Amino acid sequence: MPNYKLTLCYDGSRYRGWQRQGNTPNTIQEKVEAALSRILSQPIKTAASGRTDAGVHARAQVVSFRAKTERMPEAILRELRAALPADIGAISLEEAAPRFHARLNAKGKTYVYRIWNSDAPDVFERKYRVSEPRALDLDAMRAAAAMLCGEHDFTSFCSDKRMKKSPVRRVDLIDVERLGDEVRLSFTGNGFLWNMVRILTGTLIEVGLRERDADSMQDILDARDRAAAGKTAPAQGLILWEVFY
Amino acid sequence: MPNYKLTLCYDGSRYRGWQRQGNTPNTIQEKVEAALSRILSQPIKTAASGRTDAGVHARAQVVSFRAKTERMPEAILRELRAALPADIGAISLEEAAPRFHARLNAKGKTYVYRIWNSDAPDVFERKYRVSEPRALDLDAMRAAAAMLCGEHDFTSFCSDKRMKKSPVRRVDLIDVERLGDEVRLSFTGNGFLWNMVRILTGTLIEVGLRERDADSMQDILDARDRAAAGKTAPAQGLILWEVFY
Repeated sequence: MPNYKLTLCYDGSRYRGWQRQGNTPNTIQEKVEAALSRILSQPIKTAASGRTDAGVHARAQVVSFRAKTERMPEAILRELRAALPADIGAISLEEAAPRFHARLNAKGKTYVYRIWNSDAPDVFERKYRVSEPRALDLDAMRAAAAMLCGEHDFTSFCSDKRMKKSPVRRVDLIDVERLGDEVRLSFTGNGFLWNMVRILTGTLIEVGLRERDADSMQDILDARDRAAAGKTAPAQGLILWEVFY
Repeated sequence: MPNYKLTLCYDGSRYRGWQRQGNTPNTIQEKVEAALSRILSQPIKTAASGRTDAGVHARAQVVSFRAKTERMPEAILRELRAALPADIGAISLEEAAPRFHARLNAKGKTYVYRIWNSDAPDVFERKYRVSEPRALDLDAMRAAAAMLCGEHDFTSFCSDKRMKKSPVRRVDLIDVERLGDEVRLSFTGNGFLWNMVRILTGTLIEVGLRERDADSMQDILDARDRAAAGKTAPAQGLILWEVFY
């Protein structure tokens, strides 16, 4: 049965996240599977590179699925684009190697977090940024970010208290840049725990506001306690930027 | 009584346009006047540089109003920003010359029309662009645009059949540029008739699609008949970009 790699973008504002949840209708997975199942006249089950939480966006989420069909991917893609709602977009669809799996084969990901760092209004991109009008010390944020890179036990930066998997992850790069009135954080790593990017962001913002020392990052990691880190930054500023294979 | 110049931006998607309409609640003017009246504890009447239609956006709409107050503009601006809904932003507020009037003193305006010229999905800016995936001949559009510049009777590009005012306007510049997958039209002139920018855009798109000759622009102008021009392009792609004084 042919195997496919689908790349999607979405505005997560009105969804309960990627993952299908029993009978709750408002998930992105459900919308995509319903459209694919209708187009391909068979029940389609998708696997994404990872779930995104309620309100989180994706610039390029990768999804794999199998379907018994002889139709060309371009034709399926065209129909899928027409079938999806305006806030979910199908970027590309290609046949994949037989054993390709969007989550199991993912080698790494980049997430971006966008902060509107001004007291001027942010009308047109308000759904994709969070507002923090106070001055941010980007040098302090960069110093803290550097201490968080590398392979660590990120238990302090995870919302899941009963996690069974290993809490060790490798963060390759945390980039802190200013683009006009926007401060943009980019996180690249081999994987992220539940809410990890949002807790890292909340903690870095507290460093930027000088409510927390950049030097304290090692203590937070060592504590292995969610309470040691900063707030969980809101979902709307987070976007799954890219998945690496 | 002090006179003020207020600059606003707004996402017009959910509004019936700028102008207050009896008891219909969903106009931008109504939201702004309600907020100002509450903040300044007196009934405030505003005058905008011009009305924008339902669904049209503004990057920098200019509004004037008078208020009896001794409060500093910065303090009023701060409260106004907090009071306005997320899709209306107050950019600046300053005291203006006693006779300043946002509409009567406007010397010119720039409107921008944004077209998403690709069959790839346009998820994140979908509310501010219209989609036209077919190939557009920008050179033909530029040739037509050049013929529309200058002082003309724009009756053919106006939706108001019973207009009492003069239909003569001066268009100084129509710029046609490609920015990646976006085609952006910018119109600068001393004033625009009702729906004029949207009908100019609809006509230029038809030229870009080669459904209409660039050379036919003079015939359309000469006809002084709305039926001679192209379709009215949708409101959502239009944005009041700047007002000149």
